Amino acid sequence: MSFFNNEDVENMKKLAELIRVLNTTGHNPATSGNYSLRSLTSPDYAIVSESGVDKSKFDVDHFLPVYFKSHEIHPLFQRPGRKSSDETDIHLAIYESTNAGCVLHSHKLEALLFADFFKNQDFATIEGLELLKGLKGIKTHEVKIKIPLFDNTQDIRALSEKIKPILQNASTSEVPTHAAILRGHGIYVWGETVSDAKRHLEVFDYLFQHQIQTKRYNC
Amino acid sequence: MSFFNNEDVENMKKLAELIRVLNTTGHNPATSGNYSLRSLTSPDYAIVSESGVDKSKFDVDHFLPVYFKSHEIHPLFQRPGRKSSDETDIHLAIYESTNAGCVLHSHKLEALLFADFFKNQDFATIEGLELLKGLKGIKTHEVKIKIPLFDNTQDIRALSEKIKPILQNASTSEVPTHAAILRGHGIYVWGETVSDAKRHLEVFDYLFQHQIQTKRYNC
Amino acid sequence: MSFFNNEDVENMKKLAELIRVLNTTGHNPATSGNYSLRSLTSPDYAIVSESGVDKSKFDVDHFLPVYFKSHEIHPLFQRPGRKSSDETDIHLAIYESTNAGCVLHSHKLEALLFADFFKNQDFATIEGLELLKGLKGIKTHEVKIKIPLFDNTQDIRALSEKIKPILQNASTSEVPTHAAILRGHGIYVWGETVSDAKRHLEVFDYLFQHQIQTKRYNC
Amino acid sequence: MSFFNNEDVENMKKLAELIRVLNTTGHNPATSGNYSLRSLTSPDYAIVSESGVDKSKFDVDHFLPVYFKSHEIHPLFQRPGRKSSDETDIHLAIYESTNAGCVLHSHKLEALLFADFFKNQDFATIEGLELLKGLKGIKTHEVKIKIPLFDNTQDIRALSEKIKPILQNASTSEVPTHAAILRGHGIYVWGETVSDAKRHLEVFDYLFQHQIQTKRYNC
Repeated sequence: MSFFNNEDVENMKKLAELIRVLNTTGHNPATSGNYSLRSLTSPDYAIVSESGVDKSKFDVDHFLPVYFKSHEIHPLFQRPGRKSSDETDIHLAIYESTNAGCVLHSHKLEALLFADFFKNQDFATIEGLELLKGLKGIKTHEVKIKIPLFDNTQDIRALSEKIKPILQNASTSEVPTHAAILRGHGIYVWGETVSDAKRHLEVFDYLFQHQIQTKRYNC
Repeated sequence: MSFFNNEDVENMKKLAELIRVLNTTGHNPATSGNYSLRSLTSPDYAIVSESGVDKSKFDVDHFLPVYFKSHEIHPLFQRPGRKSSDETDIHLAIYESTNAGCVLHSHKLEALLFADFFKNQDFATIEGLELLKGLKGIKTHEVKIKIPLFDNTQDIRALSEKIKPILQNASTSEVPTHAAILRGHGIYVWGETVSDAKRHLEVFDYLFQHQIQTKRYNC
Repeated sequence: MSFFNNEDVENMKKLAELIRVLNTTGHNPATSGNYSLRSLTSPDYAIVSESGVDKSKFDVDHFLPVYFKSHEIHPLFQRPGRKSSDETDIHLAIYESTNAGCVLHSHKLEALLFADFFKNQDFATIEGLELLKGLKGIKTHEVKIKIPLFDNTQDIRALSEKIKPILQNASTSEVPTHAAILRGHGIYVWGETVSDAKRHLEVFDYLFQHQIQTKRYNC
Repeated sequence: MSFFNNEDVENMKKLAELIRVLNTTGHNPATSGNYSLRSLTSPDYAIVSESGVDKSKFDVDHFLPVYFKSHEIHPLFQRPGRKSSDETDIHLAIYESTNAGCVLHSHKLEALLFADFFKNQDFATIEGLELLKGLKGIKTHEVKIKIPLFDNTQDIRALSEKIKPILQNASTSEVPTHAAILRGHGIYVWGETVSDAKRHLEVFDYLFQHQIQTKRYNC
């Protein structure tokens, strides 16, 4: 564990605990879901969850340092059959396009069902709810947020390139963006810290539930 | 901790435990929700939860004494960046208008969805269910309760002034009132003790679920 | 505790544990719900839960021996303000009309919503599902069970008299009856043992969920 | 316990733990559900859960070795009143028709509700969702899986014979099959290992929830 400095290790512990909690509430069924941190002291790499781990057993040892330049695991961590998440490229793209310090990728059903209300649109929107204030930079419920939507694909590298300019634009908009949805797949949520990312995920989960109910029953 | 007398400390422990339990059932996602007690021995202040705390970690140290007159934290508890809940004014208004000893503010989705059935109305109503008897002062299911509804706003001071006369009227009505809903925001529930407030919150949560299902499917 | 014999104490422990578990899954919000045993060695009394106890804290000390003849608590257990459940009469009526050894009264919402599909009818029915075999005496899914329905009332004594002949008839029918629903109130479920009653409650809970979904969406 | 070799015992421990976890999430209400392993060292028998056990208390002692030839428990494990699951024949048929190493039979409601969308059809289908990749042998969301559907019956022996050729055909198809649904009853899910079977069950549970929501609301 000595490869990582203390600050990173503290965050890895926090994030591993969060991953196990998220496992009990439907965020990462069937070993799905992946999670990462931006290294606080080594700007060259991100710390990304290993592929194929049962998230109910996730621990700090399941984090791997991945280099931004090569998208490869640091040689010290390479083992036969071990690889970082299949969606590592998207995590790296988010760090390259925003000031995120932590990225959470959840498969929770509500994100998919919510996005289905915005067929053939590039963005989903939500407005007028108090809990929007749980998103960093938002101070009133009288606001409309936009969440970028992308079609699912197995070409993760191409998708990560497509995501970058959209997140870069979104970062400079008046109303900040902290999430993106892959249709039929799941949601990426981020924040400057583990706590911010956790809070943002809770906000989106709540907002999606509200919106699904409200849009279905039109009340 | 010596600032508070024993009776208050006992209630703070009870309420902190309740807050953590409520966190596991959707009442305060994303550090939302706020909670308070009327001091049992110092009529000059209420004991209000600190702003921005992750409710899964809420402890007695996150309670702050707030003076009714000034709406300010007692000097002994002031720290840079520390403040009582943004909605402190509403808690104080409830104590000033009712005989509440404990106030719970939950963001649970059902309160919002329930209130949507009463568009453009000042009160929501529920009648005819056995669990209504869980509300203090109600002895039969053959009763109709009224729950005041308010539009959400970021001007909490103005809202708290608007709430007061309505709760004062409600307090003297034959059928008692133990809750008020902010549209698109959440619910305030209160009781004379922590146990009463907890029981009332459970009653409303159950009644809202029942009413949403019944009104949607008209069965 | 020496008042009760060992067999009764064992069952009281089992039932108290079950009550706490049921509390975590919506069966007894707001101190609602009540529970009882037929004494295994003293045919003169039933063992009934105390009124007004928060079911998350329910323990063996919250059971009171109630005499069938007088409907009163044994003098040894009388204390100021202490009484057995307000619905004690119904528990006693069930023991007098069936061979039940344990009675569970749950407020879980699904029983109410399910009964609403049988407006103006004396019985609800369910047929054709494998889990029906979880009910004692049922060996195939090709069966139709009947559940007696009663209007809610605060006159528990009158209701208990009304229930008796219906349960006596039901006891001698080919397809056994293990439950009765009070509209807008809750369900009574019983079995010869605590395990039987628990299993029956789980069966009904599952069947109601299935029937509500199926009847709503007609699929 | 010395009857079983170490490898089998390890798997029995894993599976018993999984059964208790599944009990908390609606997979085996009312002692329903049954579970098995193919013995890793004795090709002559499967290891099948005992009939009628409350799954919240399930332990390794509730597993019984059953011979493929005779469908009977090994003589060492025979006790008065003890029998392997009533659906043992189906478990054996799955092991005889596929390369399964672990079979899980869940009564979770969603499988029943999902199957109802495929009335009078021999197979249910699902396509286009990322989580399909949680099923062994599937590498893209651009795939359509088929799940065989069977009518429920109490003649388990006849059903098990009917299932065999269908699973044998399914095993050789391009898109693998890891589950079969009994209408109004429940689902069988299998995998080469306990972990595979667990992951597959989580996949199906998620997919069914998604499909039910999507098909109902057509969005």
